[in-house]
Amino acid sequence: MRGAVLYAPGDIRVEDREDPKIIEPTDAILRLSATCVCGSDLWPYRGIEAVDGRSPMGHEYAGIVQEVGSQVTNIRPGQFVIGSFFASDNTCELCQAGYQSSCINKEPIGAGGAQAESLRVPLADGTLVATPDLPPDDLVPSLLAASDVLGTGWFGAVAAEAGPGRTVAVVGDGAVGLLAVLAASQLGAERIIALSRHAPRQQLAVTFGATDIVAERGDAGVAKIKDLTNGLGAHSVVEAVGTQESMLQAIRSTRPGGHVGYVGVAHGVELPGTELFFSHVHLHGGPAPVRRFLPELIELIWTRRIDPGKVFDLTLPLEQAAEGYQAMDERRAVKTLLRP
Amino acid sequence: MRGAVLYAPGDIRVEDREDPKIIEPTDAILRLSATCVCGSDLWPYRGIEAVDGRSPMGHEYAGIVQEVGSQVTNIRPGQFVIGSFFASDNTCELCQAGYQSSCINKEPIGAGGAQAESLRVPLADGTLVATPDLPPDDLVPSLLAASDVLGTGWFGAVAAEAGPGRTVAVVGDGAVGLLAVLAASQLGAERIIALSRHAPRQQLAVTFGATDIVAERGDAGVAKIKDLTNGLGAHSVVEAVGTQESMLQAIRSTRPGGHVGYVGVAHGVELPGTELFFSHVHLHGGPAPVRRFLPELIELIWTRRIDPGKVFDLTLPLEQAAEGYQAMDERRAVKTLLRP
Repeated sequence: MRGAVLYAPGDIRVEDREDPKIIEPTDAILRLSATCVCGSDLWPYRGIEAVDGRSPMGHEYAGIVQEVGSQVTNIRPGQFVIGSFFASDNTCELCQAGYQSSCINKEPIGAGGAQAESLRVPLADGTLVATPDLPPDDLVPSLLAASDVLGTGWFGAVAAEAGPGRTVAVVGDGAVGLLAVLAASQLGAERIIALSRHAPRQQLAVTFGATDIVAERGDAGVAKIKDLTNGLGAHSVVEAVGTQESMLQAIRSTRPGGHVGYVGVAHGVELPGTELFFSHVHLHGGPAPVRRFLPELIELIWTRRIDPGKVFDLTLPLEQAAEGYQAMDERRAVKTLLRP
Repeated sequence: MRGAVLYAPGDIRVEDREDPKIIEPTDAILRLSATCVCGSDLWPYRGIEAVDGRSPMGHEYAGIVQEVGSQVTNIRPGQFVIGSFFASDNTCELCQAGYQSSCINKEPIGAGGAQAESLRVPLADGTLVATPDLPPDDLVPSLLAASDVLGTGWFGAVAAEAGPGRTVAVVGDGAVGLLAVLAASQLGAERIIALSRHAPRQQLAVTFGATDIVAERGDAGVAKIKDLTNGLGAHSVVEAVGTQESMLQAIRSTRPGGHVGYVGVAHGVELPGTELFFSHVHLHGGPAPVRRFLPELIELIWTRRIDPGKVFDLTLPLEQAAEGYQAMDERRAVKTLLRP
């Protein structure tokens, strides 16, 4: 099969790779209908995160089951399924508590590389969720989005306790931030402030339910959010970047007693204890337990109540993965969908 | 009046100070029945927290109202009242949300120095809660405890979401930690693990409801808590120390999806973002909004369902405040009550 491999920072190649095979009796093999490039793929692409040799890339996927192991009972060949970036058994105490991305038997999907034609998914029964039927083509981007970027934005909004009567601010106008806006809107937030300086992203944020746009960053962004909230700060703030600056901006934009939901993978972040103590905020986040939300998200997409696939503003054949990375790196594209 | 003043690290003196007077029409003046030394008073006493010149000390108090300002309507002279370390209006949006220690009009009580015969309390209507009647003498220590140490331990347990079916671990065997054990027990926790190496404190923890004692610290303490919780960590962990080591121990002792309630005033703490991200814990804490809990705590004490006054294992006349500090500094006493 063909698959994308990172050779070195900035050097993505699509090449022949070995076809995935059933290894464990709980595995499934998928023929992928769509995959994409994640904001977190840019960390190693930019050389900020070290990579050990040539790395198959990608962890977002949707496609059709080709084959299942002997112990797989919920999922069967021919189904269209979506999974998340961690395989999880969905039965352990942590999964049952809704933290499938900390499943005691979790396995990263990234190792296999989902930017490819086919993919082995471990713990298929726990990990994969099937659509009611084979989807029409125009729903595929949104279903793919549920695999990570929508599920992650959704978790950010849930962790920030977005809901009725709440003012929600979203730090970060990447695909995750934009879909956190959509999530906050679906969760019933009264007011949604998107922080963005880029007109097309501002527009998409408004489409997804943002009521206010703040273009300022850092301290100026914090001051603007305070202005909009009687000087108190937002009830709920989603952090969708992962840098020291964005984390501090999120904490400082939240009122005492409010909630910060942080889903940007932390890079070089050190939180000052004294400031955090006196901020009085709730802090929750981490790798999104997307599996918790998948059935609900698929239902919302299937019934066309949400259209998260709008974040894909560039669609390319898998063979052009390198251009897909470059466009995102240069912020020419919000998110690139790849068609195997 | 007489009052305790910190001259320099290790140098506490009780001396004549000016009698407090009504300054604002919302003030009350109390004649204190009891006051005490807080673990946080030891930071400046030990020279770890800088002090600017001579500082009146103390912020925990219970006593009888002597005089009220012209705008005070809920509180009247002759009542026995308890307040907390921040005066709060109890009407602003943050107070109404239960964060009185972040009240937009908050004033620290510490400035006046509650280790004294009398005390001016600003925002008396919002800050003070009266007992149903004048209390019998043996209830005074427990009522005093509600002013800070019990309220703070209680907030730690609430922030850690201690409750039925939960395993709660408490890091720190000072008075706040011990009362977090009591709080967790009152909140219905199934299992309460107290971390303590000191026999008398272990005993008090058991009296307050601890079901398990762990004497190990740091990584060994974390390992022991994992052993006791199927390798997962506790659902709820209260941090009641405020150091880098204790914060990391608390975070590492909590299962993914679990809750850390931190109430130890942070000193020199820097939280590593990547570890926090992948820990998947909820983090909440800060200066306890004791006012939120005061009516409930007074009721529990008044009806003799809890006896938090047991944390006072040394009672001295106010004049001997210096010995009270020293005994706590040397860990000869858990907590010193001072009788003006």
